Amino acid sequence: MAGKMKAAVVREFGKPLSIEELDIPSIRPNQILVKVDACGVCHTDLHAARGDWPTKPKPPFIPGHEGIGHVVEVGASVDWIKTGDVVGVPWLYSACGHCEHCLGGWETLCEKQEDTGYSVNGCFAEYVVADPNYVAHLPKDIDPIRTAPVLCAGLTVYKGLKMTDTRAGEWVAVSGAGGLGQMAIQYAVAMGLNVAAVDIDDAKLAEARRLGASVTVNARTTDPVSYIQQKTGGTHGVLVTAVSNTAFTQAIGYARRGGTIVLNGLPPGEFPLSIFDMVMNGTTVRGSIVGTRLDMIEALSFFTEGKVSTVVATDKLENINDIFDRLQHGKVAGRIVLDFRN
Amino acid sequence: MAGKMKAAVVREFGKPLSIEELDIPSIRPNQILVKVDACGVCHTDLHAARGDWPTKPKPPFIPGHEGIGHVVEVGASVDWIKTGDVVGVPWLYSACGHCEHCLGGWETLCEKQEDTGYSVNGCFAEYVVADPNYVAHLPKDIDPIRTAPVLCAGLTVYKGLKMTDTRAGEWVAVSGAGGLGQMAIQYAVAMGLNVAAVDIDDAKLAEARRLGASVTVNARTTDPVSYIQQKTGGTHGVLVTAVSNTAFTQAIGYARRGGTIVLNGLPPGEFPLSIFDMVMNGTTVRGSIVGTRLDMIEALSFFTEGKVSTVVATDKLENINDIFDRLQHGKVAGRIVLDFRN
Amino acid sequence: MAGKMKAAVVREFGKPLSIEELDIPSIRPNQILVKVDACGVCHTDLHAARGDWPTKPKPPFIPGHEGIGHVVEVGASVDWIKTGDVVGVPWLYSACGHCEHCLGGWETLCEKQEDTGYSVNGCFAEYVVADPNYVAHLPKDIDPIRTAPVLCAGLTVYKGLKMTDTRAGEWVAVSGAGGLGQMAIQYAVAMGLNVAAVDIDDAKLAEARRLGASVTVNARTTDPVSYIQQKTGGTHGVLVTAVSNTAFTQAIGYARRGGTIVLNGLPPGEFPLSIFDMVMNGTTVRGSIVGTRLDMIEALSFFTEGKVSTVVATDKLENINDIFDRLQHGKVAGRIVLDFRN
Amino acid sequence: MAGKMKAAVVREFGKPLSIEELDIPSIRPNQILVKVDACGVCHTDLHAARGDWPTKPKPPFIPGHEGIGHVVEVGASVDWIKTGDVVGVPWLYSACGHCEHCLGGWETLCEKQEDTGYSVNGCFAEYVVADPNYVAHLPKDIDPIRTAPVLCAGLTVYKGLKMTDTRAGEWVAVSGAGGLGQMAIQYAVAMGLNVAAVDIDDAKLAEARRLGASVTVNARTTDPVSYIQQKTGGTHGVLVTAVSNTAFTQAIGYARRGGTIVLNGLPPGEFPLSIFDMVMNGTTVRGSIVGTRLDMIEALSFFTEGKVSTVVATDKLENINDIFDRLQHGKVAGRIVLDFRN
Ligand SMILES: [Zn+2]
Ligand SMILES: [Zn+2]
Ligand SMILES: [Zn+2]
Ligand SMILES: [Zn+2]
Ligand SMILES: [Zn+2]
Ligand SMILES: [Zn+2]
Ligand SMILES: [Zn+2]
Ligand SMILES: [Zn+2]
Repeated sequence: MAGKMKAAVVREFGKPLSIEELDIPSIRPNQILVKVDACGVCHTDLHAARGDWPTKPKPPFIPGHEGIGHVVEVGASVDWIKTGDVVGVPWLYSACGHCEHCLGGWETLCEKQEDTGYSVNGCFAEYVVADPNYVAHLPKDIDPIRTAPVLCAGLTVYKGLKMTDTRAGEWVAVSGAGGLGQMAIQYAVAMGLNVAAVDIDDAKLAEARRLGASVTVNARTTDPVSYIQQKTGGTHGVLVTAVSNTAFTQAIGYARRGGTIVLNGLPPGEFPLSIFDMVMNGTTVRGSIVGTRLDMIEALSFFTEGKVSTVVATDKLENINDIFDRLQHGKVAGRIVLDFRN
Repeated sequence: MAGKMKAAVVREFGKPLSIEELDIPSIRPNQILVKVDACGVCHTDLHAARGDWPTKPKPPFIPGHEGIGHVVEVGASVDWIKTGDVVGVPWLYSACGHCEHCLGGWETLCEKQEDTGYSVNGCFAEYVVADPNYVAHLPKDIDPIRTAPVLCAGLTVYKGLKMTDTRAGEWVAVSGAGGLGQMAIQYAVAMGLNVAAVDIDDAKLAEARRLGASVTVNARTTDPVSYIQQKTGGTHGVLVTAVSNTAFTQAIGYARRGGTIVLNGLPPGEFPLSIFDMVMNGTTVRGSIVGTRLDMIEALSFFTEGKVSTVVATDKLENINDIFDRLQHGKVAGRIVLDFRN
Repeated sequence: MAGKMKAAVVREFGKPLSIEELDIPSIRPNQILVKVDACGVCHTDLHAARGDWPTKPKPPFIPGHEGIGHVVEVGASVDWIKTGDVVGVPWLYSACGHCEHCLGGWETLCEKQEDTGYSVNGCFAEYVVADPNYVAHLPKDIDPIRTAPVLCAGLTVYKGLKMTDTRAGEWVAVSGAGGLGQMAIQYAVAMGLNVAAVDIDDAKLAEARRLGASVTVNARTTDPVSYIQQKTGGTHGVLVTAVSNTAFTQAIGYARRGGTIVLNGLPPGEFPLSIFDMVMNGTTVRGSIVGTRLDMIEALSFFTEGKVSTVVATDKLENINDIFDRLQHGKVAGRIVLDFRN
Repeated sequence: MAGKMKAAVVREFGKPLSIEELDIPSIRPNQILVKVDACGVCHTDLHAARGDWPTKPKPPFIPGHEGIGHVVEVGASVDWIKTGDVVGVPWLYSACGHCEHCLGGWETLCEKQEDTGYSVNGCFAEYVVADPNYVAHLPKDIDPIRTAPVLCAGLTVYKGLKMTDTRAGEWVAVSGAGGLGQMAIQYAVAMGLNVAAVDIDDAKLAEARRLGASVTVNARTTDPVSYIQQKTGGTHGVLVTAVSNTAFTQAIGYARRGGTIVLNGLPPGEFPLSIFDMVMNGTTVRGSIVGTRLDMIEALSFFTEGKVSTVVATDKLENINDIFDRLQHGKVAGRIVLDFRN
């Protein structure tokens, strides 16, 4: 499709993104072109733009992986997506389709995956190329702004909760009651779990209770480990969205014997683990990243059925550097979503 | 039962055990008295005698938790064990029977458990008191010497392998091909797993191959992580019997994405964990200690069906301090079993 | 304990129960005596009194297995229950404690189990003997009338739902929206499941919707199979509480491919199964009876946390034959609970 | 690819297949053309040619779904298969790739699947069109004759065994020790299961023992249910390859409480099921058809690692009607494989 588009481009790690006018990208026969309506801004975009992680994207590139838009062009060999369809463009741009992970419903572990806004250009742009086999199919009347955060934030915590191996009626502790934590609490409640939420901000803990957490504790004023152990007998699962040394050590302490701690964040560096305690207590620690297409369908169902909601504030692409700055300094409540409709 | 018995007693942590003549203990109505025929010597006995772990036994006490013997006295309220029965007296002396762990087939996680040779007196003695509900029932013609190591060493690695969540046809890496490792290799093969064994001793690796390991690597001369990744594509499960910093870090490297590393040892201190890698690779790290009564029945079945065997050397109670010394310095091949008969 | 008690006794199968004055039973050292406050009346009591099933109880006997009461006497070797404790006396009077089922958290499958009100006397009496290891421990301030139905009706459907192998967000069909069905709907909703309810009574379907069923269908006026398939795409699980030929065949039709149908009822006779359809659709059909002690703790937690409620009408022991008559003719809404307090 | 090919064509249900010379089929851009080297003859081919099942193929069509051959032509949009590759063409020709079954690693349950030799032309021909995403990738030096039966017979029993939910060390009963049964016994043994085999032919039972079955019983001379219950305590799993009324009823009787009976065959008609027994015993009955691509990779691994072998007799395409006749009358030991080479 001929024409120009506006995009936020990482030219150099750690430098401000530049807002540029680029050619609308052309697609291959097995690809689709999506006109972006909305895209959430995720911490991962920040890590990408700074080159924080061992495997780095290659500048110049366009971040953004919570995109929702309309299909405006369809490659010749694509048969299951049509022009006009509303789709979600998530972190997992594509996977090989043939490895044991892909065949076993675990394409998020595919070694040959491409990631949107990281290894291929993402949705901080008016148009984005996508793989029709990996986008989410959405109802045409969906609100793109409110839905966007489900594609990564919602999906990640939903999958993380599944990986705690808990069942309805059991306890899960959610470490952190910010944007991700609030989504996690809602998903957990909708999954029939009893929720204990930990934060250091009383306002967030009040919101956690409103969302259904039965136990809340301010880790700044109360020892959260002994408090949660006393109130719940130890939780069966723990979800840690923001991993710090302290959060990690405490998280293991929230669990009862036989419990599972799931880590959702991607902090660089190493963390101290007491193997003695793990063995004595039969503890499981597990990493979990985003979710598969099936997880995404499920996470979206909870949202469209009204069981979970998102808290969003809209902004525009031109402000991306300011948004990143606020995100980095913890000044964002809920999710900022770039609104490309005007 | 009136009379005297010989026992090895820990009077003070870190000091030699004293060989003493004690009264044969009396039993309560819900207990049994077992005349010990054989008892294996386990690293845990060494840790107990030295007071290595945070929760310590209270001297004086008698170690030993791989005991096999004959029931010589039965309490008034015991109805399912009879005098003359052959039983195994394992690490798990008793559990509460009422908590969620006990009710759910996970009595090894019971917070109120008693442990043989640790919180209650063990089998380094001619007689031992046992709980009839937690002993193993054994065929009368069993060889107590060869069977003893199944009660802890065999059970521990068998349960550890189960906790890797692997299925027949998948790969498991066994880190360490000494006594525990050799049992682990046999159990893994009998469970239909493909086995990669790691050690730093070529003789042990040759034995590993004889026991059915398809891939072996000497970690002293070859990088075991890249070798195992190349030969197996990464293993689905990893069993680490002896945990050191190096063994732990390597073990995580043996696993393919989505794999599970099970830790069987109880090293004090903390170990460095890369959460970034765990999340990216969807890795699970899990602690596992001994096994339940059902696990023990299963572990014994593999043994009695001839699918796994034990390597034992007999010795006598009086030599316990020398045995401990050899164990501590890694000079024991297979398992030393105290022979109380004759 | 000396004295007399009133009891409803089956003297001959199919004949009215006789209300008799009997000696209060004496207990063995490992038993407890419970003064019954309340006992629900279950269809199984009816089957027992008529001798409907292949394995029959031996008259004379006292039915009743949803009993709640106070412990008034404790055997000498009982240490974990005290006089004054409030306990629930469920169907599973005791199990052997040693078989693989018992050790594996599946005591409901124990071949040596005793069943309350069937193989041993039950709770249609002012006093009942119980096994302290198999009763439910209840808070002292619990309402015995409202709680009684959880012990069998609630437990049975809760366990049945667990056995559908469904996860939160999936669909379950509940066949029958009477007393058991209404409890099943509530448990299913509390477990995060989407519920489709089938009945032939519009009033019950209205109640089903009030309790959270998203889809309801009157099988008398609408083909329930095509309706449920259309509205849900086929359910992941199906729970069939009252099994008839029609209900069974339809139930299999509600499921989507790969779905699981759980049968809770105990109809005599044989039912026609299309193996061709089962194989083509990857269907699972599974029987489930009551639940274990751990299931009972869980089922009770949902109740005490206010996530499910019971519909009860009280009556008195003397009316048992009239109650049986109404039960047999489907004239009972909710559960009739015998009130022994006066 | 221009040219002619020989094929066996079903022109009318129940009539002999006609051996015809047809145009080599042309492929679409997302397809591949395979020159067939070998193809096993399966009972399903017989059912297809007779139109036995409710959903029927549309004559004229070419049966055959255990094909192995060389890729001779590759569509323009195919990138992961190359000319010269050796591939297996199994029953599952293709699936939609987008439904929950496909995304969840259960493409065998896809409602939009195409089936080789049934809804699309199969491998009883010198050339066959295939979907590159659903063929098995095979080593170039594989023996096509011996490998062919793994693609359907091996895969089916392997998956069926997986669906029994058994673990290594447990018991599985294999009902029928013919071709399928012999493969099942081998897979079961390689999976660490203890095997009880049932047949009515002593020679087949002797072969079963040679392949590793620990218990065998001739159902013509001994009551197999009581024999298996006595020897094994009831098996944890049961695999029924050939379903008859008698085989089905007996199979349920082989299982211990909590056991799972998996049905692999596709008999038309209905079978009598005692729901009372299922509920009392906590029994699971489950249908299973072929297996997914991942199952196929696994089933092939057991074969290439030498853990299972196939018994084959070669024949040629022209004899297909005679082969069908022998198959129908149970005169085939092992598997007949059509050899298209030379
Ligand atoms: Zn993200
Ligand atoms: Zn892949
Ligand atoms: Zn030990
Ligand atoms: Zn306990
Ligand atoms: Zn009942
Ligand atoms: Zn039992
Ligand atoms: Zn076939
Ligand atoms: Zn599909």
